Amino acid sequence: MSTSSDLNRRQWLKTAAVGVAGLAVASNFATTPLAAQPGPPSGKAELSRIQGNENPYGPSPMAVAAMIKHAPRAFRYATVDDANELIGLIATGNGVAPANVVVGSGSAEILENYAKYLSASGTGEVITAAPGYLKFTDSMKKLGSKIVAVPVDKDMVHDLDAMAAKVGPATKCVYICNPNNPTGTIVDPEKLKAFCIEISKKCPVFVDEAYLECSDKFEANTMAPLVAAGHNIIVARTFSKVYGLAGQRVGYGLMSVEAAKGVMAYNEARLNLLGVMAAIASLKEKSYVAETRAKIKAERDKLCATFDELKLTYAKPQGNFVFFRTGMPIKVFQEKMLEGNVLVGRAFPPAVDWCRISIGTPAEMAPAHIALRKIFKA
Amino acid sequence: MSTSSDLNRRQWLKTAAVGVAGLAVASNFATTPLAAQPGPPSGKAELSRIQGNENPYGPSPMAVAAMIKHAPRAFRYATVDDANELIGLIATGNGVAPANVVVGSGSAEILENYAKYLSASGTGEVITAAPGYLKFTDSMKKLGSKIVAVPVDKDMVHDLDAMAAKVGPATKCVYICNPNNPTGTIVDPEKLKAFCIEISKKCPVFVDEAYLECSDKFEANTMAPLVAAGHNIIVARTFSKVYGLAGQRVGYGLMSVEAAKGVMAYNEARLNLLGVMAAIASLKEKSYVAETRAKIKAERDKLCATFDELKLTYAKPQGNFVFFRTGMPIKVFQEKMLEGNVLVGRAFPPAVDWCRISIGTPAEMAPAHIALRKIFKA
Repeated sequence: MSTSSDLNRRQWLKTAAVGVAGLAVASNFATTPLAAQPGPPSGKAELSRIQGNENPYGPSPMAVAAMIKHAPRAFRYATVDDANELIGLIATGNGVAPANVVVGSGSAEILENYAKYLSASGTGEVITAAPGYLKFTDSMKKLGSKIVAVPVDKDMVHDLDAMAAKVGPATKCVYICNPNNPTGTIVDPEKLKAFCIEISKKCPVFVDEAYLECSDKFEANTMAPLVAAGHNIIVARTFSKVYGLAGQRVGYGLMSVEAAKGVMAYNEARLNLLGVMAAIASLKEKSYVAETRAKIKAERDKLCATFDELKLTYAKPQGNFVFFRTGMPIKVFQEKMLEGNVLVGRAFPPAVDWCRISIGTPAEMAPAHIALRKIFKA
Repeated sequence: MSTSSDLNRRQWLKTAAVGVAGLAVASNFATTPLAAQPGPPSGKAELSRIQGNENPYGPSPMAVAAMIKHAPRAFRYATVDDANELIGLIATGNGVAPANVVVGSGSAEILENYAKYLSASGTGEVITAAPGYLKFTDSMKKLGSKIVAVPVDKDMVHDLDAMAAKVGPATKCVYICNPNNPTGTIVDPEKLKAFCIEISKKCPVFVDEAYLECSDKFEANTMAPLVAAGHNIIVARTFSKVYGLAGQRVGYGLMSVEAAKGVMAYNEARLNLLGVMAAIASLKEKSYVAETRAKIKAERDKLCATFDELKLTYAKPQGNFVFFRTGMPIKVFQEKMLEGNVLVGRAFPPAVDWCRISIGTPAEMAPAHIALRKIFKA
């Protein structure tokens, strides 16, 4: 028997399969890969939405207070003074000069506009991981470059040696998402540091640290000091993940002064006042990030324990998500999880029988544990 | 004697003259032409900032409530469902289909991306007014088109006959900002309607209605019904002006389904959750717009009365600003107003001895009236 909620769910799976690009009126708006979302099956509680790598521990109380405080004055454009306060905090926190910082509408804008800046001097090859995050490489591809996707190793970690071997005269850039999306794995920091120093003599190395502040050892793993030291490294970060501000679209890049000027020439989106105020407040409240990181780790560990119990293979996670092998097509697995009121995401070729689960609150994770046991204990 | 506040002010005027493009670290962030702003002269009250065409009557209470309500869940990306709610309200309010609507990060994104969409099919000439708003024409120029700037008539109104005479085989687009920025004048609606219908047979007519909701007769003057009727007209609007949400960057365009699809392909900025929620709430609270419009008109009328008293020439205003002849270089006039604690804006060539004053609250306008009398009654 087909109920209307069944239809909703089927319609959603269809939409999810088509992808956001297939939505006529709202494709300009899409911010999550599965942004068209179904409601909960009838009579059930709100769905656990653990598909978008959002951080439901939310913005810090200071960030929320800043947004509430400034809401009545949202009639003012954000000013250069506002931007400079944010840029100053970012620069100080990362040991670089303000002129090394570019702020954008999420780190997505930094990725896109670095691609434009880089492509203005000609096309070439971009070395990346497979599976890996596609925003930057898709932009480069659209602008005429060729993508060389190097498979991750057996542990789902960037294979730096294999990537280094691909670097040649045609290489425009090497892209490292660390922790990698969707695998969640982190690269050995000493290995990555040596790789960055060596490869950046030949071409820029773009290190996307969107999820690094969710990891156990941020300070040891960030490549920001290499930017400060003058290597041709670009580090991208976002307020969307550990800071819990995905909706407010604020991100930044650290890079050479020359690159920063070049990227800024392409930045068109205006930052929104409440996003900037929330980001400024977030950077002033360091303890909240540590608390959030601990909460994410606790739930991530519990999820891994369930995978261990069910003898499921997963990549060692350091972001706010875990990538694991379902052994079935992603659409089949999504349907099964939806039966348990849990929304999980999406296809990440070439890992077609794997799935990424984002870390939610304990209340959001509980039905996921139940559904996983139901599916895999049978 | 030069005090530090004097230095601040001089520095500001220098910055203002250089323009935002000259600011190294923050040019990607600039949202107002005079975004680098001085503080008040020492010992004085906060400056009256009536230079950026902001609307200090602010967002509606419902919009503020929506931003406050959603602030704690800003960890969620805005979804296609959110976008579709906003798009649906815009479509219904303007008698078009949702597929005719493109939402963007302010109407600026619509202007920029329509320019990109249009230029993808080749370059040509863009007919516009002088003085006029430069966002769209600057984008078209950057993309290779030639700008044909037709002087406004003796009343500072678009000279539609002269503009029509310039339309030829090379014309890519005609751009009409109505009310015009910086002159604030509105075109006779019957004349504009006839112009749009006739010219749009030859090329698209882009009608920028950013300020039209501030005018006395919005319904009679909007060209949105021509979009609904299938003419090749594009109408751009924003939540930055009468809705008092400049900081939250939400705008939209109404156009053919084909153009909407084309423009969306270039839309890269992600809308922010609180901006979308505030925009949705704003559209549901129609009475507040009428109240705001009346308050703007009351202060606009008072400003015009002062200009009349001082026998100063001004363009008949229909936006939230007035353009008037100072008879002196803009920098000299800005200095004089700053002595009176009032920040006014900027150079609008070729009208080099005119100035645009934005409509503030009664408290913000009071020092402007005093300063104007001091300067022009001498």
